[in-house]
Amino acid sequence: MNNAIKKILDKKVAWLADKGPDKDIAITSRIRLARNIDGYPFPINAKDESLVEIIDTVNFATTKTDALQESFKIRLKDLNPFERRILMERRLVSKEFISNKRTSGIVINKEENLSIMINEEDHLRIQALDSGLQLEAVWEKLNKLDNELSQNMGFAYDKKLGFLTSCPTNVGTGMRASVMLHLPALRLTNQVAPLINGVKRLGYEVRGIFGEGSESLGNLYQISNQSTLGEREEDIIFKLNKIILKVIEHEKDARIYLLEKEQNLLLDNVGRAYGVLRHAYLLNGQEATNSLSALRLGVDMGMFTAVDLHLVNDLFVLIQAAHLQNYYGNSLTQKDRDIVRAEIIRAKLKDLERKIKQ
Amino acid sequence: MNNAIKKILDKKVAWLADKGPDKDIAITSRIRLARNIDGYPFPINAKDESLVEIIDTVNFATTKTDALQESFKIRLKDLNPFERRILMERRLVSKEFISNKRTSGIVINKEENLSIMINEEDHLRIQALDSGLQLEAVWEKLNKLDNELSQNMGFAYDKKLGFLTSCPTNVGTGMRASVMLHLPALRLTNQVAPLINGVKRLGYEVRGIFGEGSESLGNLYQISNQSTLGEREEDIIFKLNKIILKVIEHEKDARIYLLEKEQNLLLDNVGRAYGVLRHAYLLNGQEATNSLSALRLGVDMGMFTAVDLHLVNDLFVLIQAAHLQNYYGNSLTQKDRDIVRAEIIRAKLKDLERKIKQ
Repeated sequence: MNNAIKKILDKKVAWLADKGPDKDIAITSRIRLARNIDGYPFPINAKDESLVEIIDTVNFATTKTDALQESFKIRLKDLNPFERRILMERRLVSKEFISNKRTSGIVINKEENLSIMINEEDHLRIQALDSGLQLEAVWEKLNKLDNELSQNMGFAYDKKLGFLTSCPTNVGTGMRASVMLHLPALRLTNQVAPLINGVKRLGYEVRGIFGEGSESLGNLYQISNQSTLGEREEDIIFKLNKIILKVIEHEKDARIYLLEKEQNLLLDNVGRAYGVLRHAYLLNGQEATNSLSALRLGVDMGMFTAVDLHLVNDLFVLIQAAHLQNYYGNSLTQKDRDIVRAEIIRAKLKDLERKIKQ
Repeated sequence: MNNAIKKILDKKVAWLADKGPDKDIAITSRIRLARNIDGYPFPINAKDESLVEIIDTVNFATTKTDALQESFKIRLKDLNPFERRILMERRLVSKEFISNKRTSGIVINKEENLSIMINEEDHLRIQALDSGLQLEAVWEKLNKLDNELSQNMGFAYDKKLGFLTSCPTNVGTGMRASVMLHLPALRLTNQVAPLINGVKRLGYEVRGIFGEGSESLGNLYQISNQSTLGEREEDIIFKLNKIILKVIEHEKDARIYLLEKEQNLLLDNVGRAYGVLRHAYLLNGQEATNSLSALRLGVDMGMFTAVDLHLVNDLFVLIQAAHLQNYYGNSLTQKDRDIVRAEIIRAKLKDLERKIKQ
């Protein structure tokens, strides 16, 4: 296995670190910047030599930064499909990136909370993330990195428009800030759809967990800004933050409502999820993720004081296809994965039960 | 509460006694005889005075029998709807019987394995049952009772046709013999429908658990003879027994198949059922019964050595609406019942888990 991937697998997933403000509902705050290097065509039009030069330029520039001086510098071609998926499942790179055929590279810091995709849609997609609701702190870190990088690269920039990007929707700040929210109580009380519509009407994007086009899994929703033009980054973040706080408030209200008015529905939802996770022998990814979501709600609400939230979070990632494959060390069919997924979860929860009884 | 009902509730349900040949698959053997007293119109056409006389005649005749000398003699009018349902849920009387508006009575022996419905469709519906596959033994007991009763009543009888009954389908022996089978493995392997069709083509009736028209619940199927004319009782029973043994063999084969070829499907089915029963907070009757069926399969196959089959059987009856009502001592809405049903099952299984750990 690729050495960098091996080291990455040894670590906890940064975006599920379970710390930071409002961490029970706001799982992760993430911001990315789209940047391109002046004088080179956008990746989609660039020849291979240009793409290689871009990778070299970015890699060199990172060595001059505080945050990425020491980092994993990986070439996409050196990774097999399984290793690429590992990175995607850890949200270090996009789905589009790992399936592209271009000469591409990735830079990831040791903490897994800063990364650069090189030659995705743009020359650079610089990403910073952290758990909990802390867009300002994430922005500070990302902004510093962006400034440091710009000292060793001329970024394509237009005085009137701002940063130039491959897709016009990113022109301007090139920034997309997003927060991943866990909204199981809003779902249980049938309030997710109207809420999403409301947030969208305000000009924000709402997506399922793994980016564009994918459905919501495990009641995880990602809310992000759409507009990148004509506003300062700080203002975009400030406004997004306000929206997110509103949504968090709604989820909290729904949790209190369930506790006070629909306790059996709540307990049933959480209890069944635990029952399935603890006793099933065949679990597909969707059911497992949704059940873990309900279990997480139970843990958040103090119903399973013995279940560690870190365990639930670890399982969210561990049961993804490539992580399962890695855990078992050999190639698995889909049915194998359902068996192995159930086996891992069962074993972890059984182990926990045993510890409680001691 | 009616005194007889109170005493009946204190006992275990006879048809779920979990003994007798092939008891893991053949839950209950049951035979009933339709009889009418000469000189009286059938119940549907009888005046109230006649119906009262019939009850008195039957009650008196039972005092002259070995089996029913001491027995509960109940008038339907003395029972409220809830008490009537208790008898139905214990399979001592039929659904049709408890909702009829005629002057009717019931005689039940102390062991709850012999009973007479008076003025159901016929003047007498004499029933004997026992757990396991033992039609001959049940017939012996029932035949003896029938003979004893006939010494104090003139049964309507035609030399050519046999016993005369209200519905022509019962004329002749007036006998319906049935065995209730638990066929979860055939259902899991999708073999129930073809099997039922095959059995029906041979001239037998296959029904869900609570008699005519109801759907199968908990993978429980009742197979009975259709024809009552032109054959001796012993021959009908002998042939039915052969069919039942064949079906039992199929179910056993399906269980072995699951164990050898589809172990994860089997374990998943049983495990999920246990998980739901152990952890749900809202359980309707259908889901609870189906889950208990899967749990029973697990117990039968040695997967839950700690779970007592008697407990599973008790729960099958205890979670029925009227029994729940009785357990809680006050009137329950349907939603209440779902809550209480889940509560009882959860508590019983939790208690069991606790005992295992000691």
